[in-house]
Amino acid sequence: MSEKKKIYKPKPVSGFPEWLPEYRAVEQRWLDKIRGVFESYGYCSIETPAIEELEVIAAKGEDVDKEIYVLERLQADPDEKKDARLALHFDQTVPLARYVAQHFADLTFPFKRYQMQKVWRGERPQMGRMREFYQCDIDVINVDSLPLHFDAEVAAICYEALEALDIGRVQLRISNRKILMGFLESLNVPDKKTNGETTVKLSDETKAEIIRDIDKLEKIGKKVLLSRLEQTLLVVGELGVNFQTFIEPFLNLAETKIKPGENILELFQNNSEIDSSNEMLREGIEELQFVLDQLAHLPEHAVVADLSIVRGLDYYTGTVYETQLLDVPEFVGSVCSGGRYDDLAGSYINKHLPGVGISIGFTRLFDVLRQAGKIQPGQKSPADVLVVLPSEERRAEAAQTARTLRERGLKVELYHAPQKVGKQISYAEKKGIPYVWFPPFEDGNAHEVKNMATGEQTEATPNDWTMND
Amino acid sequence: MSEKKKIYKPKPVSGFPEWLPEYRAVEQRWLDKIRGVFESYGYCSIETPAIEELEVIAAKGEDVDKEIYVLERLQADPDEKKDARLALHFDQTVPLARYVAQHFADLTFPFKRYQMQKVWRGERPQMGRMREFYQCDIDVINVDSLPLHFDAEVAAICYEALEALDIGRVQLRISNRKILMGFLESLNVPDKKTNGETTVKLSDETKAEIIRDIDKLEKIGKKVLLSRLEQTLLVVGELGVNFQTFIEPFLNLAETKIKPGENILELFQNNSEIDSSNEMLREGIEELQFVLDQLAHLPEHAVVADLSIVRGLDYYTGTVYETQLLDVPEFVGSVCSGGRYDDLAGSYINKHLPGVGISIGFTRLFDVLRQAGKIQPGQKSPADVLVVLPSEERRAEAAQTARTLRERGLKVELYHAPQKVGKQISYAEKKGIPYVWFPPFEDGNAHEVKNMATGEQTEATPNDWTMND
Repeated sequence: MSEKKKIYKPKPVSGFPEWLPEYRAVEQRWLDKIRGVFESYGYCSIETPAIEELEVIAAKGEDVDKEIYVLERLQADPDEKKDARLALHFDQTVPLARYVAQHFADLTFPFKRYQMQKVWRGERPQMGRMREFYQCDIDVINVDSLPLHFDAEVAAICYEALEALDIGRVQLRISNRKILMGFLESLNVPDKKTNGETTVKLSDETKAEIIRDIDKLEKIGKKVLLSRLEQTLLVVGELGVNFQTFIEPFLNLAETKIKPGENILELFQNNSEIDSSNEMLREGIEELQFVLDQLAHLPEHAVVADLSIVRGLDYYTGTVYETQLLDVPEFVGSVCSGGRYDDLAGSYINKHLPGVGISIGFTRLFDVLRQAGKIQPGQKSPADVLVVLPSEERRAEAAQTARTLRERGLKVELYHAPQKVGKQISYAEKKGIPYVWFPPFEDGNAHEVKNMATGEQTEATPNDWTMND
Repeated sequence: MSEKKKIYKPKPVSGFPEWLPEYRAVEQRWLDKIRGVFESYGYCSIETPAIEELEVIAAKGEDVDKEIYVLERLQADPDEKKDARLALHFDQTVPLARYVAQHFADLTFPFKRYQMQKVWRGERPQMGRMREFYQCDIDVINVDSLPLHFDAEVAAICYEALEALDIGRVQLRISNRKILMGFLESLNVPDKKTNGETTVKLSDETKAEIIRDIDKLEKIGKKVLLSRLEQTLLVVGELGVNFQTFIEPFLNLAETKIKPGENILELFQNNSEIDSSNEMLREGIEELQFVLDQLAHLPEHAVVADLSIVRGLDYYTGTVYETQLLDVPEFVGSVCSGGRYDDLAGSYINKHLPGVGISIGFTRLFDVLRQAGKIQPGQKSPADVLVVLPSEERRAEAAQTARTLRERGLKVELYHAPQKVGKQISYAEKKGIPYVWFPPFEDGNAHEVKNMATGEQTEATPNDWTMND
């Protein structure tokens, strides 16, 4: 051992998870399954660089810039600053928009793509939030208009992808923002200025406040929400007292989960306190009904319409999704969310490009389940078989045995040194390799293979043995 | 279309490549193949965060820091600087060393892992070099000592992985640094101070200079190298005239590629100008011979011993590898390189951890071949089948057809709108989907499927049709 080394003992950096091989094996299997489902619907893969120009990332404006990591070359020359400022992407939607704008002429529309990459958020280290994580996204983008077909399709895909992970029952919760927007638009509420003698329409600002509050319905319940709405709206201040009673009929509906097969319009029409003639409301109901109907083939628990779902982001304009794991109480919030947006890439190209998409917050899902002990670790080695090395003299034969098995599609480790057989077997055990293969230890002897689970050892030939033998 | 948008037209950022879907499909297939070969030898996957503490990345010292990207939070509070400085990894070897040190107690040794991630180099934007690219690495790490077995194994894996890509003949070039080091150590060269009357051993500095020069043998040829050596060594200045004649016998050997089956020691012993009794030289020859012998099963062109290969990096101590594509003249340099290092993680842990590994510079390989027109683009959609939507009324039946085919393992797009059949077929054509499926357009009719390559259209049933029908 070398003497006196300067040692920097590394410790985990908060927010940047990494897994031991036995968990990475599961993570990889999960990512493969999700990819398999995405591809089974004909979505193509793209990858975009982790790094974009800051100007591209910030083009959307809003307050995302708080969470962006920008880059500096450690040894940049001061007189060399001609390069645009670069930053790590914080999601895959902005890069998708940039990609579609940049390659517009080379893409075939509707453009159906999936993207499974890491994204980075420049969170304060103290917050305990993830700063690097996988997202698994699917989106469809089209020119000018996009059939509702896709609003149902991405929901079905997302459901199937999560189902494939075998993590209990998955429930999609779907709404359409037009319903709430139309409802709010339809309201004629008492005007404070006339002491309630005349009515007034809600301002956009008030609507935005209400939407933000309703987003919290499930968390805080109707009662708290109503009193909160009162407070919020007193601050906004243009409305008369008891304004919140105008919202209550909607909240009653929003608390009822609507199943596929139910007629949403009827639910509204049966509710005399709601004016269901508003055009935007009608449109939202029709769209939601269509999406729900397309998902009627899924199991009963799989889909509900949930009018309380609005999603924070401003750019959603129609269908919105959240997803709950019904059998994993440890997982708080939505594992997979998304929605429809009217115009994805308007900041980068002078085309009207509506889209719809869903994103699985993969790493958080994986980590929550792992911490909850709900993930069975995989093997430490992907090998199916460990081939024992009987002696230095028999190395060529052992190596040939390993090659023969490999050519037949098996994953095979060849042990690296002619150590005691017990030591070689114990290596297989430690790494979770299910079969140990013994090439002949002496001329004339047969090959044998040991099933590590049963302990059974039988004669075999490399040319025709399979794991089911 | 919305009026007056502020548009930021994005352009490609030099050094950050991205592909259209039809090329991404090939990239992904290649990555899958490489992964498949890595796993077929029982190497496990790990991923490390893209981001490490700068102190970890810089622990190796040297001059790597020139190429490092460090991170800043765009909106960091000035009083919040308690976090360690973070940087993007520039290779996967430093993160592997950190990973092994950090998780030492939880790993099973020999630790055989592969890692296929992107790495970042903070190159000057003007240089036209890649700043983000995939590397595909395999390494084996063990405690205290590592059997030579692995030096041969990683070479075989690397060869197989590249062969799997179907890019023509691949040639591994292997050497062992101990041979050149031992040879230089054995030399007794005329001392300048005594005008050549006495002899002297080469200083470490001189040896390092010579090694750096010999690395260029293939590029510049023996003649130029010899005169260059003369100049170099005049600068170092301790040696008498005509020193380079002492190196020439070695260069003659280095210019001859040695095939598996040849006896390397004999080659040296037959050369009276080389003192083949040096211990380090002998050790290097034995090691190289072992590695070569283990690779004798590969095709004739696949392996040569090439004593001119030394690899720049200081930490290689034994076997070193480079790889050439014999049928791709466009690819200059080595596509896959590596070697053995005595002590990988000494900067992070007080253990002696020797290793051996190889890295495929994946993105450069892919990009060179793509630009040379040697990559046939894949489909724009991964789908095997496009199911036609005959009419709105028949949507449920078409959707059910698509689901049935999907359940049977096929990748299936369902067309999104009941447009003219010609339009739907032309969509399949544009996306490269090989089969178009027609559910019954009227009650009582049969399903039909059209093979897009042959134009043939036949009756079929979703429950038992396969692509070979």
